[in-house]
Amino acid sequence: MTWYLIGSLAALLTSFGFVPQMVKMWRTRSVKDISLLTLGQLALGVSLWTVYGVHLRDPIIIAANMISLATLLLGFLLYRRYSARKRT
Amino acid sequence: MTWYLIGSLAALLTSFGFVPQMVKMWRTRSVKDISLLTLGQLALGVSLWTVYGVHLRDPIIIAANMISLATLLLGFLLYRRYSARKRT
Repeated sequence: MTWYLIGSLAALLTSFGFVPQMVKMWRTRSVKDISLLTLGQLALGVSLWTVYGVHLRDPIIIAANMISLATLLLGFLLYRRYSARKRT
Repeated sequence: MTWYLIGSLAALLTSFGFVPQMVKMWRTRSVKDISLLTLGQLALGVSLWTVYGVHLRDPIIIAANMISLATLLLGFLLYRRYSARKRT
């Protein structure tokens, strides 16, 4: 039970770890300092982690990485939106 | 063997996922758009993942998250250095 809680808390923290960054991108409408390469590398990485989680049959690893992937894809959209945007 | 490669590649990509962001922080000396909350949340998260990996006795999960933690801690140092820095 304790291990389940530790794993779940770890999963929650890292799965939603990119959320504060997204909120900051959204609020400031500035993405100048964000590394697109980090976004891409992490997106590919968590996709493979999901596949590995299926192999281990570990639902925590699968769910955590699928949520991470979703937030990273949203991050891409925000990056694209605000890197192209001109202040008027 | 295939699973070992997939897990290892996943681990490599995510473990070093923050490295391009660190390089960008280092080169531009600008950290204005970086979310400190995301750094902290991820650092706490990967610490708990390491503990969970010890429980699962999965060396890939342990190593991957320890490397992530190291890069995030370096990210903190860079953030502190460049957020305090005044251009002269």
